[in-house]
Amino acid sequence: MRLWPLSNEIRSKQFLKLLEGPDGEPESMIMRVYRQASRVAPGVRIVVATGKKQISAIRNQLGDRVDICVEPDRRDTFPAICLAASFLADERKMPGEEPVIICPVDPYVEDSYFEAFAEMAALAAENRAALTLLGLEPTYPSEKYGYIIPEDGERVSRVAAFKEKPDLSTARQYLAQGALWNGGVFACRLDYLLEKAHERLDFTDYRDLYGRYADQEKISFDYAVAEREDRIQVLRYSGTWKDLGTWNTLTEAMEGHILGKATLNETCENTHVVNELNVPILCMGCKDMVVAASGDGILVSDKGQSSYIKPYVDRIRQQVMYAEKSWGSFTVLDVQEGSMTIKVELMPGHNLYYHSHEHRDEVWTVAQGQGRVILDGVQQKVGPGDVVSMPAGCRHTVFADSWLKIIEVQLGEGISVEDKVKYDMDPRWI
Amino acid sequence: MRLWPLSNEIRSKQFLKLLEGPDGEPESMIMRVYRQASRVAPGVRIVVATGKKQISAIRNQLGDRVDICVEPDRRDTFPAICLAASFLADERKMPGEEPVIICPVDPYVEDSYFEAFAEMAALAAENRAALTLLGLEPTYPSEKYGYIIPEDGERVSRVAAFKEKPDLSTARQYLAQGALWNGGVFACRLDYLLEKAHERLDFTDYRDLYGRYADQEKISFDYAVAEREDRIQVLRYSGTWKDLGTWNTLTEAMEGHILGKATLNETCENTHVVNELNVPILCMGCKDMVVAASGDGILVSDKGQSSYIKPYVDRIRQQVMYAEKSWGSFTVLDVQEGSMTIKVELMPGHNLYYHSHEHRDEVWTVAQGQGRVILDGVQQKVGPGDVVSMPAGCRHTVFADSWLKIIEVQLGEGISVEDKVKYDMDPRWI
Repeated sequence: MRLWPLSNEIRSKQFLKLLEGPDGEPESMIMRVYRQASRVAPGVRIVVATGKKQISAIRNQLGDRVDICVEPDRRDTFPAICLAASFLADERKMPGEEPVIICPVDPYVEDSYFEAFAEMAALAAENRAALTLLGLEPTYPSEKYGYIIPEDGERVSRVAAFKEKPDLSTARQYLAQGALWNGGVFACRLDYLLEKAHERLDFTDYRDLYGRYADQEKISFDYAVAEREDRIQVLRYSGTWKDLGTWNTLTEAMEGHILGKATLNETCENTHVVNELNVPILCMGCKDMVVAASGDGILVSDKGQSSYIKPYVDRIRQQVMYAEKSWGSFTVLDVQEGSMTIKVELMPGHNLYYHSHEHRDEVWTVAQGQGRVILDGVQQKVGPGDVVSMPAGCRHTVFADSWLKIIEVQLGEGISVEDKVKYDMDPRWI
Repeated sequence: MRLWPLSNEIRSKQFLKLLEGPDGEPESMIMRVYRQASRVAPGVRIVVATGKKQISAIRNQLGDRVDICVEPDRRDTFPAICLAASFLADERKMPGEEPVIICPVDPYVEDSYFEAFAEMAALAAENRAALTLLGLEPTYPSEKYGYIIPEDGERVSRVAAFKEKPDLSTARQYLAQGALWNGGVFACRLDYLLEKAHERLDFTDYRDLYGRYADQEKISFDYAVAEREDRIQVLRYSGTWKDLGTWNTLTEAMEGHILGKATLNETCENTHVVNELNVPILCMGCKDMVVAASGDGILVSDKGQSSYIKPYVDRIRQQVMYAEKSWGSFTVLDVQEGSMTIKVELMPGHNLYYHSHEHRDEVWTVAQGQGRVILDGVQQKVGPGDVVSMPAGCRHTVFADSWLKIIEVQLGEGISVEDKVKYDMDPRWI
């Protein structure tokens, strides 16, 4: 939510294509991390642990190159890591002695960060300590991060203590003691994770844990494991590391000042614009500002102020106006009492679920592309200008034979995303 | 254009409902001027001289209470005033000795401004001078206005000279001399205007001038008449007078800081937001700024800078995304290659022209309301969920029996507003 209006319940910050890849193409945080990790360690097995809502975005951005371990509910990091560990052991048959590295998908780092991972993997395999952490050399006494106090100043050192996010003067003391930021990166052997999982959670194997996931305790891996482990060490990393969690830090990592349709006049200074709307933004005399616009809203903020966005967004949050789906995307164009107009875009070869609505009628007008519509089991070809009317209760789906753009008008009282019944598809349609 | 993105080719600043009427309802500049003039001089005949494109907006905002003199082309103020004068004489049979006051529709003034009009009308009827001007007591040495140098400091005085927009130091000299701003208000007898019109323009009567209007010289009334007239005097006005032509001056006249969906956090200072979009705007840490958003674009500007907007807007100008029409309004929702989606809203009892398109098909989905569609002469009733397909060449229109909202998908290459053929309607439909 801190990157509102671009991030929302469905669209997390790690999927926003606000960075620039080596070919000049827009790149998201997760695309960047994947590209860097694959380059530094070609052939490494990458598994993304995530919630259901993110699967479409991950597949759209990374394709089938990554394995996905889906969390059926939202718990904290300890259950999530246990689920991923049992997924690797039971589903992917990974041997217990293999090293595993757990890391967040959204730090903005240089390649040497991933080179440090190779060193951590070797340390984990060596097994002199049970757990190896990555300690980030602090660049300022931050109040936003947890700290690791190492026993000495060596490159690899035992961990003396963990510290919660401190206030400013405490942070200064930590820095004087040679403390490191805790970047949330852990390396260990797979069997260590499984052992810790079974110690605390009651389950037999991956499928069992998956089925009972919602009942698991919400507890962080730091609290459940790292802070209780004596055989723990930290590897120092002194390269670039940025947390692009606010507009202020994110815009620092942007290549240019403008993404999308925008004009900054010559009196603007240190101002960034990210515009996902199809209309132009004109900025005049803006100093140290960020302007971000999407179908969800418009932010106009002083860069420093932008860190304090969360409570305001919580108050104005509204309907999701745009979402990326496994089959393409939808954009809400217009909301009226008793009707809603949506643009549905399907990628070639993709289709919607076969479904019906109880409380609304729908009308599709094909604006672009070719496809096949199924209405109550009957197939028909559609192209530009074709209209399909689906009264409430009518089972329907559409298959895109090329890029397909459809304008959908929903009609009824109390239109809601919850009003959807899914059905199995006839395999002959596919 | 200086109030972009709210003003555009079709929607002039005088129609923007950014002010607040006495009942707390949104009010435009023209509504305010009309309300004030009618209150100060009940029963006065008000004629608006305007171009074709503005007629719908005037009728929507002022109803049938005003007379409209339409300029068939865009010339300067002298031909426009001549046309209006012959309209009054020939079409409205107004006697030549009646006083006429010519004034702009968009000054932000107090009622005493219109009380001064009554005095000007009396001076014009008296006919001691041929032309009476309103001189505004300057509040600062402005470089934006023309000046009138009076012969003395009396309330009514002969005009010694006219001065073009000066530079700052010259403006200061003018103020020291007791100069007045020229507010573009003139009073004289109707026959004086007709005499001047026939002196310079070759025409017989109103209809003749209307027919040959495009051939008339582009020349201002100041240059063609006022600056050449010896029998000319000026009446001083010292009340409030503001030119709401820029965001900077306009926001000063706004009642609150927000129009539309917006949040200003507590670190904002002297910032105004006008939001016509249906998504929220969040402003944080903005100082002395104006943020304005419409279907045409988004402006984020320092208030002082906002006066210099014109060249930037000229560069980014694009398709009109919203327009008020005599029958309601249209809003462009989505533009794709080969298709465009529009929301058409018709007021009860109104209808579109009967028309066809050569190069595009159209599909209507009725989202709300009841109406009657005519397709190639055949009438059918429509309501929510009904779909009407109109291939290229099909003659069509719709009559709204209640508020009617239609989602229109246009399909074809090179979709253009020019692609429209109008036909006469069968009177039985109406």
